[in-house]
Amino acid sequence: MEKMKLKLLYADLKSDIEIIETELEKALNSSSHLLNEASLHLLQAGGKRIRPVFVLLSAKFGDYQIERMKHIAVPLELIHMASLVHDDVIDDSNMRRGRRTVKAQWNNRVAMFTGDFIFARALEYVTIIDNPRAHQILARTMVEICNGEIIQIEDKFRMDQHIKDYFRRIKRKTALLIESSCELGAVVGGVDEQNIRRLKRYGYFVGMSFQIIDDILDFTATDKELGKPAGSDLLQGNITLPMLLLKDDATMQPYLEKVMAGTLTEEERLKMLQYVRRSDAIKQATAVSDKYLQKALKEVAALPNHPMKKKLRDVALFIGKRKF
Amino acid sequence: MEKMKLKLLYADLKSDIEIIETELEKALNSSSHLLNEASLHLLQAGGKRIRPVFVLLSAKFGDYQIERMKHIAVPLELIHMASLVHDDVIDDSNMRRGRRTVKAQWNNRVAMFTGDFIFARALEYVTIIDNPRAHQILARTMVEICNGEIIQIEDKFRMDQHIKDYFRRIKRKTALLIESSCELGAVVGGVDEQNIRRLKRYGYFVGMSFQIIDDILDFTATDKELGKPAGSDLLQGNITLPMLLLKDDATMQPYLEKVMAGTLTEEERLKMLQYVRRSDAIKQATAVSDKYLQKALKEVAALPNHPMKKKLRDVALFIGKRKF
Repeated sequence: MEKMKLKLLYADLKSDIEIIETELEKALNSSSHLLNEASLHLLQAGGKRIRPVFVLLSAKFGDYQIERMKHIAVPLELIHMASLVHDDVIDDSNMRRGRRTVKAQWNNRVAMFTGDFIFARALEYVTIIDNPRAHQILARTMVEICNGEIIQIEDKFRMDQHIKDYFRRIKRKTALLIESSCELGAVVGGVDEQNIRRLKRYGYFVGMSFQIIDDILDFTATDKELGKPAGSDLLQGNITLPMLLLKDDATMQPYLEKVMAGTLTEEERLKMLQYVRRSDAIKQATAVSDKYLQKALKEVAALPNHPMKKKLRDVALFIGKRKF
Repeated sequence: MEKMKLKLLYADLKSDIEIIETELEKALNSSSHLLNEASLHLLQAGGKRIRPVFVLLSAKFGDYQIERMKHIAVPLELIHMASLVHDDVIDDSNMRRGRRTVKAQWNNRVAMFTGDFIFARALEYVTIIDNPRAHQILARTMVEICNGEIIQIEDKFRMDQHIKDYFRRIKRKTALLIESSCELGAVVGGVDEQNIRRLKRYGYFVGMSFQIIDDILDFTATDKELGKPAGSDLLQGNITLPMLLLKDDATMQPYLEKVMAGTLTEEERLKMLQYVRRSDAIKQATAVSDKYLQKALKEVAALPNHPMKKKLRDVALFIGKRKF
């Protein structure tokens, strides 16, 4: 991640993001030594804290109070963290952002309960918000994320799937939580209904663009940039957009068969990546992401004038145009 | 479980428990085939639905409306179901109530996400209740349950633990959710503060008694009654009260060493069980459970006169005196 660039985007929110960071540390504190170690491991891994940023930016269009908004920003980031910990079990991932995952550092069981604990903490945090609508949005989002992760298991290694299956997955995997971050920021911030809807749609479109770019980068970025081997998604059986666009390509067939059989060598992985990077699939997938990005920008344009309008635009562009 | 006896206890609540059962089926329905299969597997395994019963009985001391109470009874049972699914991963259990567990029937990953999904559904269900206190109690309970399950991992195979470590574990593992079932039933049912506190304490004491009996039965009941091999707790590294009372017993030493080393044969398991069953530890552990049971009955006695008072007493006695 181009951390510096992102920091500039966050400049206006710096002190508020620091409050969120402190609250995250507090939220992850428990009476268990093992749990504290696992949580510290996660906190040190960092992250863009993009969901809190969306909460705060959206709330700026209403009555912004950080002391109130943190009770919605913190649980959203916690839910994101917990779902990553569980995802790494599902995908059998040992590395994330250049660090060992909880399931690799300890084991699947510890990862399962660390995730459960973080989920539970998220819920505890959000009970401070006395807005039933906020609770409903959050609970609904969690159901859909879980649903999505089961669908992800069901779709693994399935080369007969359609692009709509992929969209269905990334909506639940990523777009929904970003959509809900914007919606909840707006709802809890007291934004009017029309602009809640705009911010919600903006979040959805940015989330879709974000995940498509992520799925492209899994092929085009280097192992070092990714903090894990490029092509990991495919090797784990997660068939993403570039692969769906290439699945009938003749050159890809022997690679795909070996991936499915689990017999792809390291040399073949590198050759396959080279082929994918030069293929049209990357351009086509980028165009799809761009389409979502444009839709997001259209929603921003419809928002009332506000200094934060430019920020929402910049964050969307940063996410939709990032190179690693 | 002595199902018939329990059914008699439930007689007054029969139609309301059926409403809960139908709602549980609805709550577990999803768009995923795999998830529906796993959920159906769980529903068919049945269960005593003891947590909903505690919710309903407690609410009877206030303004009882099943249509309102179901929104708190269903999520509590769902949280219980979800935690069992995750527990079976933690304990590597293949059998529960005579049926294969989700992790055995599918695998750890499916169990992890089935549990996550059921947790999320529980939250979704409870959002209907517009009582912030109820949400806080529920969230706090979930944090503590998760905390407890991490402690359970940390304490596994640790023979140097004290009885207070055991109490700390069973409080979180079982007593808290039953305590919260009573408390939430009373809070959402609009019971006055003094009686909320009594019902809450009743739930805690019954829960402690319940788990101690469960832990005794793991040694004294037959494999058939348990629906899994007797002594499973110990073999999985969960050191329960009877074992803590026997840990310095000379005859037990060779058995315990073999359990720790994972080399206990089937013949030795049966011999060990025979020894434990005849030991004083069972009587002593039963006396501890009885102490909690008596405390529970004292709380019931302090409740105002009500036809349901006898039921609370009967349920506590049933739980504290059950033979398998």
